[in-house]
Amino acid sequence: MATRRDFLTRVGQAGGFAAAFVTMRELGLMSDGMSASSLTLAPNAGAGVNVVILGGGIAGLVSAYEMSKAGFRVTVLEARSRPGGRNWTVRNGTAVEFMDGTRQVASWEAGSYLNAGPARLPSIHKTMLGYCRELGVPLEVEVNSSRSALQVSEKAFGGRAVEQRQVINDTRGHVSELLAKCVKQHALDEELSKDDCTRMLDFLRTYGDLKEDHKYAGSARAGVSRLPGAGPVTQELRKPLDLHALLEANFWRGALFEEGLTMQATMFQPVGGMDRIPFAFAHRLGSVVQYNAQVEEIRKTPSGVRVLFEQKGRKKAIEADYAICALPITVLKTTPNDFSPRIRQAIAKTEYADGFKVAWESKRFWETDFNIYGGISFVASGPVGLVWYPSAKIFSDTGVLISGYATEGTSDFAKLGSIEAKLAASRAAVERLHPGYGRRLTQPIYVNWGRIAHNEGSWVGRERETNNSTERTTYYDGPYKEFIEPDDRIYFAGDHCARVGAWQEGAALAAHRTIQMITERVRLTRTA
Amino acid sequence: MATRRDFLTRVGQAGGFAAAFVTMRELGLMSDGMSASSLTLAPNAGAGVNVVILGGGIAGLVSAYEMSKAGFRVTVLEARSRPGGRNWTVRNGTAVEFMDGTRQVASWEAGSYLNAGPARLPSIHKTMLGYCRELGVPLEVEVNSSRSALQVSEKAFGGRAVEQRQVINDTRGHVSELLAKCVKQHALDEELSKDDCTRMLDFLRTYGDLKEDHKYAGSARAGVSRLPGAGPVTQELRKPLDLHALLEANFWRGALFEEGLTMQATMFQPVGGMDRIPFAFAHRLGSVVQYNAQVEEIRKTPSGVRVLFEQKGRKKAIEADYAICALPITVLKTTPNDFSPRIRQAIAKTEYADGFKVAWESKRFWETDFNIYGGISFVASGPVGLVWYPSAKIFSDTGVLISGYATEGTSDFAKLGSIEAKLAASRAAVERLHPGYGRRLTQPIYVNWGRIAHNEGSWVGRERETNNSTERTTYYDGPYKEFIEPDDRIYFAGDHCARVGAWQEGAALAAHRTIQMITERVRLTRTA
Repeated sequence: MATRRDFLTRVGQAGGFAAAFVTMRELGLMSDGMSASSLTLAPNAGAGVNVVILGGGIAGLVSAYEMSKAGFRVTVLEARSRPGGRNWTVRNGTAVEFMDGTRQVASWEAGSYLNAGPARLPSIHKTMLGYCRELGVPLEVEVNSSRSALQVSEKAFGGRAVEQRQVINDTRGHVSELLAKCVKQHALDEELSKDDCTRMLDFLRTYGDLKEDHKYAGSARAGVSRLPGAGPVTQELRKPLDLHALLEANFWRGALFEEGLTMQATMFQPVGGMDRIPFAFAHRLGSVVQYNAQVEEIRKTPSGVRVLFEQKGRKKAIEADYAICALPITVLKTTPNDFSPRIRQAIAKTEYADGFKVAWESKRFWETDFNIYGGISFVASGPVGLVWYPSAKIFSDTGVLISGYATEGTSDFAKLGSIEAKLAASRAAVERLHPGYGRRLTQPIYVNWGRIAHNEGSWVGRERETNNSTERTTYYDGPYKEFIEPDDRIYFAGDHCARVGAWQEGAALAAHRTIQMITERVRLTRTA
Repeated sequence: MATRRDFLTRVGQAGGFAAAFVTMRELGLMSDGMSASSLTLAPNAGAGVNVVILGGGIAGLVSAYEMSKAGFRVTVLEARSRPGGRNWTVRNGTAVEFMDGTRQVASWEAGSYLNAGPARLPSIHKTMLGYCRELGVPLEVEVNSSRSALQVSEKAFGGRAVEQRQVINDTRGHVSELLAKCVKQHALDEELSKDDCTRMLDFLRTYGDLKEDHKYAGSARAGVSRLPGAGPVTQELRKPLDLHALLEANFWRGALFEEGLTMQATMFQPVGGMDRIPFAFAHRLGSVVQYNAQVEEIRKTPSGVRVLFEQKGRKKAIEADYAICALPITVLKTTPNDFSPRIRQAIAKTEYADGFKVAWESKRFWETDFNIYGGISFVASGPVGLVWYPSAKIFSDTGVLISGYATEGTSDFAKLGSIEAKLAASRAAVERLHPGYGRRLTQPIYVNWGRIAHNEGSWVGRERETNNSTERTTYYDGPYKEFIEPDDRIYFAGDHCARVGAWQEGAALAAHRTIQMITERVRLTRTA
């Protein structure tokens, strides 16, 4: 008798990822919380229907891939000579060109790279992981958190960096000691039964690694001043970081980073660079994707859409029954179109943040001299807030490290002005974490998505400062509602059409939803 | 001008790992807390000196490798036909033979394996990582902790498994709420200044993801009942796990496991199995390692040592200036010898624990159906306490999963008696974590080091139950002191000669210390 798994494997082979995915849901094999897609495409659902897809980023590629499988006739117009959009991997020889003419060329060892856009795949993003499986994109673990990574603040510990293992475990120790004291002083007798008070004290000893008297006096969890060794060499504990200084340092963003649902272990990255994903889609799609095809006008016709574009100096036009517009909203602001007033308003109201990354090549001193293999160090003050170590080719000679990843907006980093000043700040952040090592960084590359043609921004949201909830609410309460509904025969797709913004998963889920809507419309039209 | 790194690279090329290691320490490039070795071997230190090494586990191999480089004439006597000792990787076709004649043969897909002994390399174990680098053993990340892994207890949540992300983050939420309440009630005014109270409340909001009123009402960190999706699909929070039930469940061992210093991210494993390390040593050592050479007597001579052994049915003897005894103490109990009374007593007093692992082959349901990629799930009650998911070949079709890793002693697991009963308990633990999936496990292998010839135990310590500190103290206060000093010209090495017991790092550090002692003795003898 065939097992459910065998069945699913066969379904997957026959119908691809989407089919198997849906079947798993229908068999109840996936818990609700772990998937957000509901793609269901009937076989030959799209026979005889033409679709033009604007933009070959993840949303455009997923749309083209799934619609091709369902029998639609699909064309993707991609302005660049490569697929992927923001999923862009910078390697030796890659040119980073800004709209103002600034040009940088990466000069790095073979195999080194910067994922200038998305750089990690959370294990809960099953749609993207499913495509990696289906398209044969090899994945490896992306180390998103390391206890050997560092945190530094000028406000505490004399400006010296301390290890994440100290911040996390000394904090937990202090918190446990304080709470144990309160329990013993009967401050929580209203909240906790007598039994629970007893259990709470036992728990807090384990939780904080407290002494028998419920005091925190340091823990090997926070690292040691001397590791145990051979013969007479015993372990020596570090003096715990002082609670007052920890509060002063304000390390909490860095200490809690790994607990964000999309940042939790286990995370992945494609071996060789994130762009292995769009290239795998593009390989399957072949001539469906038209490169160097710059959309110039988006028009409605009585029975569909008409898109004018330029390709290799020639003006062209394509007509289709439907369009999926998977271009950044920033680009739509300057693309002549026939959109309805509600979409025009939504476009006008949507602003994009200008995410940046600064990357450097260096010998892997963070591994050899600091025991740091992947993960992120945090700088609690100053214009550059984090240093992200490569998970690729760990233990090799050189690597590309990111020093600075945030949005610029009106931040202190933006105020630095020149690229030179920004690179200097990036180098200085490494120096603060790793004194004496800043000068080892070479071959910098600075990417700012706000300055790159065909994107003109990284993701929805003006700025991401300490609290961006206002920005986000405005978008999701306003323009978002418009983009998730079609404008006649023009549909939208992209991470800006999902509540998983700035993630590839959002782009893929939005694509699924959009093609489902089109397929359903085709079905109803045929039935009518 | 040559950089320090270039210099070190050249030193490393000329003198191997040990030389570069020492040089790095001398240049102050490694912090004290991060290395416990102090190996310093002068060139040709061992010219003209013969050493016989008993046992080809990590301690024996490291000794032979470093001494060969320093000019000693070295022979390793290894009872088995393979190097590595407890560093043993079981693969398709590997026979697991117990001393009572019980025989199991692994029948697994190519590429699948069980590391029956050591299975992870912490990033703080620089000696072993250094050898992997020097010997060209490719490493990959060992995922030791995953927020998607599970915990289950019969005492709470109706016996249903909950995710680590829930246990860890809901616990932190409750703890933060309780402590915030105490701060607000002025229960900590003696401990905290007014400023620190304010900062503490801010911190606790971030720490526990509390509401503005400092209540914990759930957090996306603990996972969601609905992931955000495309279009109108918003995220829905889970109801947080109840604090009382969490205390009842007693999940703390599993929740804090990742914080043990040797268990902290980032961890590694050799690609293809841990035995890639001993095989790499053995490849370098060539005929220095004599296999199938069973030590039968360890004797002293007026000027050195004489070891009798049997190899392929033939009785042989080897004489040397020094011996390094890197055999398990259990084996020494029955090996005729000339040891001094203090060593004989130490041997008699030393007992070994009987570590076991149970492994199964299965389709990777934990990945496809539970989003678990590596890491460990914990079963808070019952004879089998954990299920460890493979970090090797993640996303492939099948994998070898461990259900049960502990010592037996007089535990409930040991009391099950037959292998069949133990396998059933192992399967049942998987079933408790993953209802409906226990029956998918096939091709079990049960390894108990206490039942395997040439080891007769896993590591020092009679039993490791809830609290083994007494056992440990007894050994380190007693026999340990004896083994770390030589008996005439017989020296000891192994993890039992380091305060890093049951880790390869301990074996390597003990080997370093031992060969340093011998080298120093040789130098003094020559000087005299």
